[in-house]
Amino acid sequence: MFSVTPVNHQFDGEIQQKIDCKTKPLGALGRLEPLALQVAQVLGATCPTIKQPKLLVFAGDHGIASAGVSIAPSEVTTQMVLNFLHGGAAINVFCAQAGFEMEVIDCGIAHPVTGHEALIDQRLGAGTRAFHLEAAMSASCVEQGFAMAKARVALHHDNGTNLIAFGEMGIGNTSSAAAIMAALLPVDVAACVGRGTGIDSETLQRKQALITQAIQLHQGQLNTPQQILAALGGFEIVQMTGAMLAAAELKMLILVDGFIATAAALLAVTIAPAARDYMIFAHQSDEAGHQLMLQHLQAEPLLQLEMRLGEGTGAALALPLVRAAAAFYNEMASLQDVGIAI
Amino acid sequence: MFSVTPVNHQFDGEIQQKIDCKTKPLGALGRLEPLALQVAQVLGATCPTIKQPKLLVFAGDHGIASAGVSIAPSEVTTQMVLNFLHGGAAINVFCAQAGFEMEVIDCGIAHPVTGHEALIDQRLGAGTRAFHLEAAMSASCVEQGFAMAKARVALHHDNGTNLIAFGEMGIGNTSSAAAIMAALLPVDVAACVGRGTGIDSETLQRKQALITQAIQLHQGQLNTPQQILAALGGFEIVQMTGAMLAAAELKMLILVDGFIATAAALLAVTIAPAARDYMIFAHQSDEAGHQLMLQHLQAEPLLQLEMRLGEGTGAALALPLVRAAAAFYNEMASLQDVGIAI
Repeated sequence: MFSVTPVNHQFDGEIQQKIDCKTKPLGALGRLEPLALQVAQVLGATCPTIKQPKLLVFAGDHGIASAGVSIAPSEVTTQMVLNFLHGGAAINVFCAQAGFEMEVIDCGIAHPVTGHEALIDQRLGAGTRAFHLEAAMSASCVEQGFAMAKARVALHHDNGTNLIAFGEMGIGNTSSAAAIMAALLPVDVAACVGRGTGIDSETLQRKQALITQAIQLHQGQLNTPQQILAALGGFEIVQMTGAMLAAAELKMLILVDGFIATAAALLAVTIAPAARDYMIFAHQSDEAGHQLMLQHLQAEPLLQLEMRLGEGTGAALALPLVRAAAAFYNEMASLQDVGIAI
Repeated sequence: MFSVTPVNHQFDGEIQQKIDCKTKPLGALGRLEPLALQVAQVLGATCPTIKQPKLLVFAGDHGIASAGVSIAPSEVTTQMVLNFLHGGAAINVFCAQAGFEMEVIDCGIAHPVTGHEALIDQRLGAGTRAFHLEAAMSASCVEQGFAMAKARVALHHDNGTNLIAFGEMGIGNTSSAAAIMAALLPVDVAACVGRGTGIDSETLQRKQALITQAIQLHQGQLNTPQQILAALGGFEIVQMTGAMLAAAELKMLILVDGFIATAAALLAVTIAPAARDYMIFAHQSDEAGHQLMLQHLQAEPLLQLEMRLGEGTGAALALPLVRAAAAFYNEMASLQDVGIAI
């Protein structure tokens, strides 16, 4: 369904030369310099400019939430979707600050809301099934989610967006992301499971036991990212994965948020390794396991702010740094321009 | 000359309560939460809003530069001042991106420039004297620098600015900052001296030897921050220190940049400990020694981007995070507003 090609490395030398000749000592802009190289690889070497950045918040509910793995019940997913629509959540505030246009996509929350034109309907069901007892969803559901996400990303691309980020909301989705991580990487379940939005030690133990049970239950049916998503996924994680693949196919910059988004990125890169070229990692979250996934992706996020909220908040806060990288590349004078020899 | 009073802690409980009741799990915004508390302590608990943020770039030359401690000669200070005035430097680009209004102050560069109305004349001389041979400047020069900086900050305060940042440019100024650090803190000279904008190992050894020589030469005359500045300072570091004290006195937020700015912050806090309350640390620089000064100030910068440029670039890049902290505090809905109980 996705045909992702690597970035063009033809102009790497030229881009690096332009970075090195800016009025600053060699390498003095630190991590913004390789970031500028990546931005120029993806958006073009001449004058890469971030246009109409969009942040899509995917919401979905999880059957496993009823087993008590979170600080909150599934109702809170719906309440937070309403909060997004009313502009009261952290992600609303941060998107407005950063100049990110934001939209909310219902991928399958348990209690749908009506009467909100702004809410985009890409529902795959009324919450997934409890993945410690049965497959979270069918194989065709995964394909349908990929197709819906692809269509939505294509629409933004056609409207001129060249940088896109994905946030999520879904009570129970750190359990799903941790299970996906355990299925994808050669690490113990214990290394994948964290406190999510703030569970106590007893709940953490239960969460870990249920994920271990799920991995055992689905053993033999976890051979591909698609199978893993069907067994353990969330509707929002399916669509996030598809959206990342679509964005990479369309050669857009992808700003990857925290733990859940990184699980989707890991799935996307497993399906199409070249997708990695388009990804900028925004924030090292406080969730246990995030660091391990990032290492596997050879990713070092731009920010380390000890947040653990999701919604795309890390991505929204990192956008100014990506803009700064593009801006220094495009706008700074060269040593030659000003006649400095260092 | 400065009368700095601590922030008011009377409303801390109320402020923390407001942060805790936002639509997010407790603490989920990580380091932005104590930042929001600090912003509200300084700018007021009701609706703290950053107004007309200003970034002042202080430029000055250093006699020690002629001893070969940098990758570039003092002429580059002047060339970079011209680059600032023409809008071509990194700090110009980052200030424009962040919505920082920027100004350039000549504190005493070796080769003054003329014909630029935008350049603010606060010259204390044509470069300092070489501090490994004699005192960098007189005691009255330090007082004069403090007074000039205080007047400039007061002007911005009167015009409505409530957040201010300070950058610097001056070939040789990491040598001055390292010497100041060695005089202020109980650490070896070797722990204070780094590669600045990128010197080789031979130059690094020379730089270290000259600073050791300077500390020995001025021993007995390094008893107060003012004496340390007279012996080892730069004109820009004097004015930066005075500006920080003035901003703290006027209860403005101070966004502290990298290595040189942190040396000034350390001087300011030594003169008036309460000044620390007003400081937000922007960027952990790549310069050796920065981490030690930050530890002494109990400061953990918002960004770690491996930059080593100065100019105020770290402060400019951190401003969006300070705005985000104020914005979530002011604009996010509370759990009560949306009827969520977590």
